[in-house]
Amino acid sequence: MTVSPLAPSSFPDLPPVGGVALAVHAAGLRYTARADLFMALLPESTSVAGVFTRSLCPSAPVDWCRWILPRGVARAVVCNAGNANAFTGRAGETSAKLTAEVVARAHGLAPDHIFLASTGVIGETLPDEALIEGLEAMTDMTATWREAADAIRTTDTFAKGSSASATIDGAEATVVGIAKGSGMIAPDMATMLGFVFTDAAVSAQVLQQILSSSVAKSFNRITVDSDTSTSDTVLLFATGALGNEEITSVDDPRCLALGAAVDHVTLDLAHQIVRDGEGATKFVTVHVTGAETEAAASRIALSIGNSPLVKTALAAEDANWGRIVMAVGKAGERADRDALRIHIGDELVTEAGLVAESYSEERATEHLHHDEVTLTVDVGVGDAEATIWTCDLTHGYIEINAGYRS
Amino acid sequence: MTVSPLAPSSFPDLPPVGGVALAVHAAGLRYTARADLFMALLPESTSVAGVFTRSLCPSAPVDWCRWILPRGVARAVVCNAGNANAFTGRAGETSAKLTAEVVARAHGLAPDHIFLASTGVIGETLPDEALIEGLEAMTDMTATWREAADAIRTTDTFAKGSSASATIDGAEATVVGIAKGSGMIAPDMATMLGFVFTDAAVSAQVLQQILSSSVAKSFNRITVDSDTSTSDTVLLFATGALGNEEITSVDDPRCLALGAAVDHVTLDLAHQIVRDGEGATKFVTVHVTGAETEAAASRIALSIGNSPLVKTALAAEDANWGRIVMAVGKAGERADRDALRIHIGDELVTEAGLVAESYSEERATEHLHHDEVTLTVDVGVGDAEATIWTCDLTHGYIEINAGYRS
Repeated sequence: MTVSPLAPSSFPDLPPVGGVALAVHAAGLRYTARADLFMALLPESTSVAGVFTRSLCPSAPVDWCRWILPRGVARAVVCNAGNANAFTGRAGETSAKLTAEVVARAHGLAPDHIFLASTGVIGETLPDEALIEGLEAMTDMTATWREAADAIRTTDTFAKGSSASATIDGAEATVVGIAKGSGMIAPDMATMLGFVFTDAAVSAQVLQQILSSSVAKSFNRITVDSDTSTSDTVLLFATGALGNEEITSVDDPRCLALGAAVDHVTLDLAHQIVRDGEGATKFVTVHVTGAETEAAASRIALSIGNSPLVKTALAAEDANWGRIVMAVGKAGERADRDALRIHIGDELVTEAGLVAESYSEERATEHLHHDEVTLTVDVGVGDAEATIWTCDLTHGYIEINAGYRS
Repeated sequence: MTVSPLAPSSFPDLPPVGGVALAVHAAGLRYTARADLFMALLPESTSVAGVFTRSLCPSAPVDWCRWILPRGVARAVVCNAGNANAFTGRAGETSAKLTAEVVARAHGLAPDHIFLASTGVIGETLPDEALIEGLEAMTDMTATWREAADAIRTTDTFAKGSSASATIDGAEATVVGIAKGSGMIAPDMATMLGFVFTDAAVSAQVLQQILSSSVAKSFNRITVDSDTSTSDTVLLFATGALGNEEITSVDDPRCLALGAAVDHVTLDLAHQIVRDGEGATKFVTVHVTGAETEAAASRIALSIGNSPLVKTALAAEDANWGRIVMAVGKAGERADRDALRIHIGDELVTEAGLVAESYSEERATEHLHHDEVTLTVDVGVGDAEATIWTCDLTHGYIEINAGYRS
């Protein structure tokens, strides 16, 4: 598989997170000659937060995580790549439960402290024997973040990781995340998995607020193809190994500091997912201002970012701003046609309801030749704004999706 | 331009409609060596109904039609292809008004009885001089339906027309329609124009109800790429040349008969638009049953029909039903995952929350080899149903849209 032209030059150097031990294994569940199982073991004090797909046909692991999340406690997270264990009925539930039980038995834990995620083909049952064998073989807990990020990939062309730090009680708290995703990506959490770890001590309730707010500004603001998966899962684990006094209130200034570090990691991972958008050749930022509400700004931005006509024009480096007008018009949110100000890069395209006098298609096209493209649209009816990130729509997308069984 | 493989074998033989006289002209507004202006003159008694784009950035002709429609009277309709006169500010308004004035002067009519439609590139002003010259040259009112249907094409690969008849007061009323559209097509009226004519006498109010109901079941149930244009317009004209006593009530049984004929024409035209979907190689019917409401059924069907992942799988003739599950899940409407019954053609794929025991991927794939594909999904929570029509997503779509400036 060719690596996306928008990929970062290398996998980042990620520090260890106190208390977190990693393992990967090639269980041959679907892929051969590569690791397809990932596990992280977590210490006794670990609290957990989660955000899941809004799909009404969620996978068995999503059902499982939703069931155990209210306990707020995690001792492990296990993920397999290649099979989503979605729409697999009773057999799928059994595989999920079995996974938790096997890991619990092997490591002396309670099954309902084991978080699960699966990604890959929908509608095929997991080969339970190979799964059990694989899970039991995961005794070497010395895998690297890079190996972990590789083990959870499906159509991803590069491994995704990020880190940040925050000063908590004078010590440096670490936040590290890995993620996968490149297609079936849309707000409301599309085929993507994200596992974020910190060594800070945080109550599960506060952790959930940090994660929910962070996801709203990152994973829920990206779109590749407007499709939403059955399996999307972002989990945030706080091991407490840092030794700080537990953060139990969102008003605690340490919560702000930690939240900012988590935000950095989730946004970086979200951008990496867009950069790995199936067939993507452009990383596109759509910034909408002058909307009535932030939700309206976000919907208009997504209407632009999801429009196949806008995305194909970007692929062709064609400054076809009429399609942006079209996408604003179909968003269903208030916008003043005659006050619309569209910029392609820094080039003002429209004002006062028609093309700007100063507009140069040459300059706009020049901007579109870059790998990173920015569209800014002021809709002229208010003060709210929002930014979303997307990619272009190319032959590569068709190539990948008319072939791969996902 | 290669004709769509899903095109009908030939343009239908369309009868004249009493009172309607047609003209076409090659005004060179954008295209060369083809007619790009279409006009129909209508007798004094003609009533009119219209349905327009829900875009909040409508074109100048849409604004114009919305303004004159409440009068309920039409004496002409004029359409140009190649330039949408959308997002053209004051200049666009002026061009629209000018068009109506020139036609009115030439034929001794009132400008506010002249309906307008434009389709093509957004954001470029119309060349008023060439436009006036073209309109004034349209004195030969003997064009055929086929010539009219050709004159309104943009990226269409074939001309679209349809007819039906209804018995009104013992006489045969005729309904004839022409339409254009192949991309930027989505419910809520995407880049499509439709002009439907009947010789029956019908009050404008009843005509509007016939048209609105008909559009809801036809043009608003098709989708090519989920994009919605600034220019969509469907107009229905009733000349009264048949001589029947005017239909003034929807409860009049003659209204039912005429409505059925209009429904036949609009649905046929809508299907032809899907058959001309940019890059389409499959005509896809998505039938959703067992939903809570018809609106819910329609939204689920559209979620399936708009999903790039479903559409690319269909292009590849890949029975990737997991993507259908995904699309049901993301529709946001109630569905019972464990009662979901998906059929590909006649092949039952899922029941009781997993793949059906009898399922044969070979038989499902066999169905997908056909040009016409049917997906049926029972979501298991109610009695409501809806059908939508769409096409697959292929390299052809990218090819067309990464090039053409629309």
